Amino acid sequence: PRGRFTIASADAAYAFSVGLALHEDIGGFFGMSPRPGETKGNFPGLTQNLRRLRLPVSFRYKNWIANVTPDWGSSSSDGKVSLYEANINYTGFSHTYVTVGYFQPRVTFYDSQSSNNFQMLERPGITNIVRNIAAGDSRFSAGALHYEKRWWIAGYFTGQSYGTRGNDSTVSDSQTGATLRVAGRPYISKNVDIHVGISALSAFKTTQNSAGRRYSPGEATEAGLTGTKLISATVSNTGPVWAAGPELGLRWRRLIMIGEYYHIGVQRSERGLPVVNFDGYYGEATYTILGKPRAYDIRQGAFSAPGVEADFDPQHGQWGALEVSGRYSVADLNDLSAGIRGGKQTVWAGGVNWYPNRHFRVMLDYNHFIVTRNQLPYNISGRNGNSVVTRLQAAF
Amino acid sequence: PRGRFTIASADAAYAFSVGLALHEDIGGFFGMSPRPGETKGNFPGLTQNLRRLRLPVSFRYKNWIANVTPDWGSSSSDGKVSLYEANINYTGFSHTYVTVGYFQPRVTFYDSQSSNNFQMLERPGITNIVRNIAAGDSRFSAGALHYEKRWWIAGYFTGQSYGTRGNDSTVSDSQTGATLRVAGRPYISKNVDIHVGISALSAFKTTQNSAGRRYSPGEATEAGLTGTKLISATVSNTGPVWAAGPELGLRWRRLIMIGEYYHIGVQRSERGLPVVNFDGYYGEATYTILGKPRAYDIRQGAFSAPGVEADFDPQHGQWGALEVSGRYSVADLNDLSAGIRGGKQTVWAGGVNWYPNRHFRVMLDYNHFIVTRNQLPYNISGRNGNSVVTRLQAAF
Amino acid sequence: PRGRFTIASADAAYAFSVGLALHEDIGGFFGMSPRPGETKGNFPGLTQNLRRLRLPVSFRYKNWIANVTPDWGSSSSDGKVSLYEANINYTGFSHTYVTVGYFQPRVTFYDSQSSNNFQMLERPGITNIVRNIAAGDSRFSAGALHYEKRWWIAGYFTGQSYGTRGNDSTVSDSQTGATLRVAGRPYISKNVDIHVGISALSAFKTTQNSAGRRYSPGEATEAGLTGTKLISATVSNTGPVWAAGPELGLRWRRLIMIGEYYHIGVQRSERGLPVVNFDGYYGEATYTILGKPRAYDIRQGAFSAPGVEADFDPQHGQWGALEVSGRYSVADLNDLSAGIRGGKQTVWAGGVNWYPNRHFRVMLDYNHFIVTRNQLPYNISGRNGNSVVTRLQAAF
Repeated sequence: PRGRFTIASADAAYAFSVGLALHEDIGGFFGMSPRPGETKGNFPGLTQNLRRLRLPVSFRYKNWIANVTPDWGSSSSDGKVSLYEANINYTGFSHTYVTVGYFQPRVTFYDSQSSNNFQMLERPGITNIVRNIAAGDSRFSAGALHYEKRWWIAGYFTGQSYGTRGNDSTVSDSQTGATLRVAGRPYISKNVDIHVGISALSAFKTTQNSAGRRYSPGEATEAGLTGTKLISATVSNTGPVWAAGPELGLRWRRLIMIGEYYHIGVQRSERGLPVVNFDGYYGEATYTILGKPRAYDIRQGAFSAPGVEADFDPQHGQWGALEVSGRYSVADLNDLSAGIRGGKQTVWAGGVNWYPNRHFRVMLDYNHFIVTRNQLPYNISGRNGNSVVTRLQAAF
Repeated sequence: PRGRFTIASADAAYAFSVGLALHEDIGGFFGMSPRPGETKGNFPGLTQNLRRLRLPVSFRYKNWIANVTPDWGSSSSDGKVSLYEANINYTGFSHTYVTVGYFQPRVTFYDSQSSNNFQMLERPGITNIVRNIAAGDSRFSAGALHYEKRWWIAGYFTGQSYGTRGNDSTVSDSQTGATLRVAGRPYISKNVDIHVGISALSAFKTTQNSAGRRYSPGEATEAGLTGTKLISATVSNTGPVWAAGPELGLRWRRLIMIGEYYHIGVQRSERGLPVVNFDGYYGEATYTILGKPRAYDIRQGAFSAPGVEADFDPQHGQWGALEVSGRYSVADLNDLSAGIRGGKQTVWAGGVNWYPNRHFRVMLDYNHFIVTRNQLPYNISGRNGNSVVTRLQAAF
Repeated sequence: PRGRFTIASADAAYAFSVGLALHEDIGGFFGMSPRPGETKGNFPGLTQNLRRLRLPVSFRYKNWIANVTPDWGSSSSDGKVSLYEANINYTGFSHTYVTVGYFQPRVTFYDSQSSNNFQMLERPGITNIVRNIAAGDSRFSAGALHYEKRWWIAGYFTGQSYGTRGNDSTVSDSQTGATLRVAGRPYISKNVDIHVGISALSAFKTTQNSAGRRYSPGEATEAGLTGTKLISATVSNTGPVWAAGPELGLRWRRLIMIGEYYHIGVQRSERGLPVVNFDGYYGEATYTILGKPRAYDIRQGAFSAPGVEADFDPQHGQWGALEVSGRYSVADLNDLSAGIRGGKQTVWAGGVNWYPNRHFRVMLDYNHFIVTRNQLPYNISGRNGNSVVTRLQAAF
């Protein structure tokens, strides 16, 4: 990509490149007093998190590419050293990437974007819950992506995530699953871009460890500064788990509006246990005030980041790019008819992103969240609260 | 090495290079039912492992080289981030590498090869057990290697492995040991290459922790997809531990045949406790069907990988390189006269390796293993089983 | 820096560089017999430690720089993979670095030097204790450094260290603090350089975890081969913690003499609990026998490493650079009036450093330490002992 440092052989048979995704979060929570009988949970008033520190390294020989990306970041509490991807790709077919290895399989609208381009700090809760069923970072995958100007498709068979067996020595059988995303652009004009798509994924069987096969979705408050997940459910004796739903996107001049809905179904392995159903959705709007507006990227099947027309230089009246965003997001892990009360989380969020130049940006998000009760010691009667988080980002 | 990306100063005083060893394993076990009273152990039907993800980085100033190689791979269950090597080398003497630091000291025939060139997925069990006495990956070493066209010698004083004290806070004294390997080529012709050698190594004293000084060899089934070691012995109150044995190798046209035998002796620190003896051996044959056959590499004192004469291109009838291998391998951790029953493991293995070009390869191995009983809960009456594992490899 | 491998775009808008700090320690302890009733602690006779393995990677676009430095080293027992820094810098102001992110904030004389230039293997005990209050490696920081020929100033607001929340899941609030260092050079001549300065830092509030807010300084014996800290204190119910003290430095021809004193004050959050006071100091002298003597580096506000005038080449009578050092260091964690007996440690140390060329060096330090008693099982009656440690260093 542009700005990724690359050395290549004179005959173009070889290329080596190294890039960077550095995301540093600073912020905290307020208005988080627990109700009587509840413990506090970890909601620091001011803390930091190295959200992502990825060094994408790429080795190419002709049409064969090995991509490896170590990661020093963490979704909630820094100190984790892990891996974002390690895969082998064949690019000999036009507009197609065939990929095998540890990868982030492209599924759902939000997760098909690079995190460097996110409109807001974190994915909507439901998107994160859904992608973790059989996709997410560093998932062993084998499949392909193909794009054209007006349509896009990607499907992968998937296995375990990097570290699943290493972090739990009782794992005796691994997950298998698959993902599929299909998207199209029914209408394109200078001022309008319409995106429609569907995403679906399934864990055919979930990981078996000493607790059997279980499905345990959970989610923090769309602010990556705490490991405390206010919504959390555990479904035991699981069979296949699947999720599917529609994607919608609209660009009108400088305004982007996107939304997704997902339904999750959890089959059970024991006769008589009820199927469990969860769901969630979100709607998000982003307006580019300064700079080149977000445009559709046909390789990602999603909108890209805004462009900086002139680097930040206040003496010459140049301010880079600026955008504002708002989002309403619901993730519901309650299925009372099946006896599961994981809680329902609603997040209202607003944010502003500033790009002094094409490689750096500053984000600021405010979230207000309302969570209904479940069985956790820090959420016995329901919790409400707020967070303000700033991110400093460098991307090469 | 060829294909490793390198930048050098115009006067050749400085050079920097970065390479890659990426090995991704997919496969599983079958026919692994435990006998009555045994637990199952971890033998997944289908799982994955990032076997090696090494980024060798080299900094040279004149005759002084610093080599560092982080590793995101694991021998059995992925998720481990560690180090393969970090050492300082002096190359001012002809055909000689003087090395100090974390290193894989070159000892035994199999372990003197690069893992990128392995004929089969994993080292023979006995080789792995032997190298772990005082060598193996990321062992602190101080010594030298010298090679000529017809002979080869390397010796190292060795200490602890990277992480030994960090992973066990009760370590109060560290291991010291040494390794020696001497090899020669008594006969060379166009069609024939004969290799003879001996390897020996010793831990003069083993690591002392809260359990005292113990020697605990163990081995999985020569398939890197489980942490369950069907053979495993523990010898307490150990004095010096040593191992030694002969190496034989023969190339006849496109056929390579190699074999090694090792005897392990475990002295005891307490009078009256018997010396414990283990041993093992293997024989392996590899035939290069397509491509340039494996040739002797005088710097490694071992055979190299086959060469690809034309990159994979089915439209032009080019198929890269292809080879088949078979191996019979025995590792015996029983010494009933000394009261130790660690089990004896026999592995029959067959495999095929395909090289579409010089930087990528695909391996497929089938293993059948027969293990005699020991005291482990998953091996009370002996276990037999099978594995099929594919590896995708990129090496730069 | 010189020798760091760099690629830049033709228009100089972009630059990428990668460097190395590799420090490998070998050595051990002797004369460490515990007194009756004491346990031994971990004082191996001969062991190794990968003290630092840092790969500083830098991405620059115009005046904006992202610096990231993974680290495979450990202060005491190897096996740790972590992060040394990950920050974003703005360099658009002359002689100024504005920095936000994980960083080692420059505070205290000793810690303002690069560890590649250290006169002795380890920082003086008191310097290490003081910097850990609100600075140290990989501390989240936001601030700036400015230097001129005759003065130097740096101040940072600081937060948690990388990994604090990840390593302790009970952290419910994070530290906040600040650092300040001001230094000047009142007299400069060809033969004389005088440095005076003050350093101060404070944790306004310390980390809150399940044990409340506590301050727990401790220190090993200025030899990085053991995790056993002979001095160690724990102060509970802490309010703000602060430290401040003067720095003095003198170069006279080839001789460098430096010293620092620090007082630490620990406020208490509960009425009636006494303020706790600790202190410590050191004096150190270094003489450059061969090579270009250490000179003042105005960017660091400290003396740099000696220069190598001709690379090591005994056949031509070239021996590189050589220096000798001695140090007397005291760290006192006793405050008996406040009921805290953490022990007082005195270290006498002598060392020699040899630089065969500008990128490699060998260090050898002898330490004799005398520690008064505290409550630890391995230090009930006081402990004395000695260590000899060699370091092999490569720096690019």
